[in-house]
Amino acid sequence: MNLNLRIATLVTLAAGSASQCGAAEPLPSWNDGPARTAIVRFVHRVSSKGSPDYVPPAERIATFDNDGCLWSEKPVYFQLLFAIDRVKQLAPQHPEWKSEQPFKAVLEGDQQALADARMEGLAKLVMATHAGMTTDEFAQTVKDWLETARHPRFDRPYQELVFQPMLELLGYLRDHGFKTYIVSGGGIEFLRVFAEDVYGIPPEQVIGSSIKAEFEIRKGVPVIVRWPAIDFIDDKAGKPVAINKFIGRRPIAAFGNSDGDLQMLQWTAAGKGLRFCLLVHHTDGDREWAYDRDSHVGRLDEALKQAHQNGWAVVDMKRDWKTVYPFEKSPR
Amino acid sequence: MNLNLRIATLVTLAAGSASQCGAAEPLPSWNDGPARTAIVRFVHRVSSKGSPDYVPPAERIATFDNDGCLWSEKPVYFQLLFAIDRVKQLAPQHPEWKSEQPFKAVLEGDQQALADARMEGLAKLVMATHAGMTTDEFAQTVKDWLETARHPRFDRPYQELVFQPMLELLGYLRDHGFKTYIVSGGGIEFLRVFAEDVYGIPPEQVIGSSIKAEFEIRKGVPVIVRWPAIDFIDDKAGKPVAINKFIGRRPIAAFGNSDGDLQMLQWTAAGKGLRFCLLVHHTDGDREWAYDRDSHVGRLDEALKQAHQNGWAVVDMKRDWKTVYPFEKSPR
Repeated sequence: MNLNLRIATLVTLAAGSASQCGAAEPLPSWNDGPARTAIVRFVHRVSSKGSPDYVPPAERIATFDNDGCLWSEKPVYFQLLFAIDRVKQLAPQHPEWKSEQPFKAVLEGDQQALADARMEGLAKLVMATHAGMTTDEFAQTVKDWLETARHPRFDRPYQELVFQPMLELLGYLRDHGFKTYIVSGGGIEFLRVFAEDVYGIPPEQVIGSSIKAEFEIRKGVPVIVRWPAIDFIDDKAGKPVAINKFIGRRPIAAFGNSDGDLQMLQWTAAGKGLRFCLLVHHTDGDREWAYDRDSHVGRLDEALKQAHQNGWAVVDMKRDWKTVYPFEKSPR
Repeated sequence: MNLNLRIATLVTLAAGSASQCGAAEPLPSWNDGPARTAIVRFVHRVSSKGSPDYVPPAERIATFDNDGCLWSEKPVYFQLLFAIDRVKQLAPQHPEWKSEQPFKAVLEGDQQALADARMEGLAKLVMATHAGMTTDEFAQTVKDWLETARHPRFDRPYQELVFQPMLELLGYLRDHGFKTYIVSGGGIEFLRVFAEDVYGIPPEQVIGSSIKAEFEIRKGVPVIVRWPAIDFIDDKAGKPVAINKFIGRRPIAAFGNSDGDLQMLQWTAAGKGLRFCLLVHHTDGDREWAYDRDSHVGRLDEALKQAHQNGWAVVDMKRDWKTVYPFEKSPR
């Protein structure tokens, strides 16, 4: 993943030189609008010594959803596309899948049957592709997939479909003493394979959904084995619970894009002192996608209402972002 | 907890000045023996640029058990003494406890009946005292207890029964770029109340056992409520699983004192490259306690055998530690 490493490095270098010379404007891919203004004002108020809203660095915790907030989530969550590719790859070892749903639908490319499979079917796909191996083996499988798989619309590696303005925001917050976390409904061990290279977020700052795992000694070698059973779903009301468990501090800033992030934002906003909440609203069907309350992936309805009621920042992607993806700057 | 803050500050200052002037010997409360030598040699080898065993700072993860490793665990785990004190405090609101075990045993000070209650009874005590309130309320209860409770043998606050040599070791590792974690069978939210003040370990680096928790909005206020059901037991084979989940990297050094730490040490030792494992053997009945394979608390048997087989460091508390508790240096 040299390419991503390069992206992260460039962003870091850019952010670093901006803070050193004090001349370059922060968040260069953000248009000068209310969202950018609100971010800069908040960061200034909590990080300036002597400010009545000053927050010590140790408490500058910022949590980010991943799907639809840091990278795209269309046509469906990328992790589901990983599961689908993996089913195709494993099919020769599973002749029974030819007649068993939802595997049959995947192998025949039957989108309608796959859509009909719903949550129960998707869980079957995930368990068949995410469990039954050691943690090291799973990580290698994800790594291999990220190196070869291409997004159907953009024909690019999935990890290039990250949002340039959000990469800049992560760097800007870290430059101001923030500790940045991912808090995602996606799989924690899936995310950790690329979060450090792509976002500069180390494994211990990645929180996500998990399946059960067990320690055992196989032929004298200690391993952790992944089992096909849900351990925790890090979505909706699960997000503040996971934040409390993993971090043990309440964030002072939270970033999301769907109703699945609402409780994380509520929990963040309800803390004492100055807090910041932001929603990314997908309004750009040309450069990315346009969707909200009627989308089956990343549905945004109640959270948007509450954002307006509570004065949370809302990014209008079309209006607020000069660039969506890093590759727009250097077309092939 | 100003006192503990002072302890942590002094240790940090001492470690800081030692590393700055390069003159003072590290780990001053450790006698010059094989355990101290092994620690210093390991830290030098993994943190010196150009060393064949060099490890980048981000991967310098060190995990510590708490009970019996960072502080004492006799006559029983301090968290159980908290539960017992809490039962006494809550008794007026629970007249039924006068006739219900194990509450009756606690209220009558009946040690034998309490011992007979075993795990099921202890779980009842923990649930009655650790659940049914918000996370904020629980943390406040623990804080209040730590400020007033006294250890039966030493008549000191429990958080003064920490091991001075281990405080120095934590500081020494951090001075060499390590990230120090607690990985304890004790309650994660109990530990987090004092870990930062006492050990300099922030909440997000504390891993422990947990009960279920749920997010809800009570009278318009988002809260996280603790429920009387086990979520995860962070002991034995649970320790590597929790390390994998919370940290997502394998430690390069692990510190424990009982069979409950064996799997954490095995998982650590089995990683690639240079690794370090250490057991604290409680051999000092005068200054602390002397116990191992026959103890009902902190039993050390199989792990000690494996330490000898695998060449893990073993601290002989009586021989290796000049000082056990910080207060020995400044008696009242």
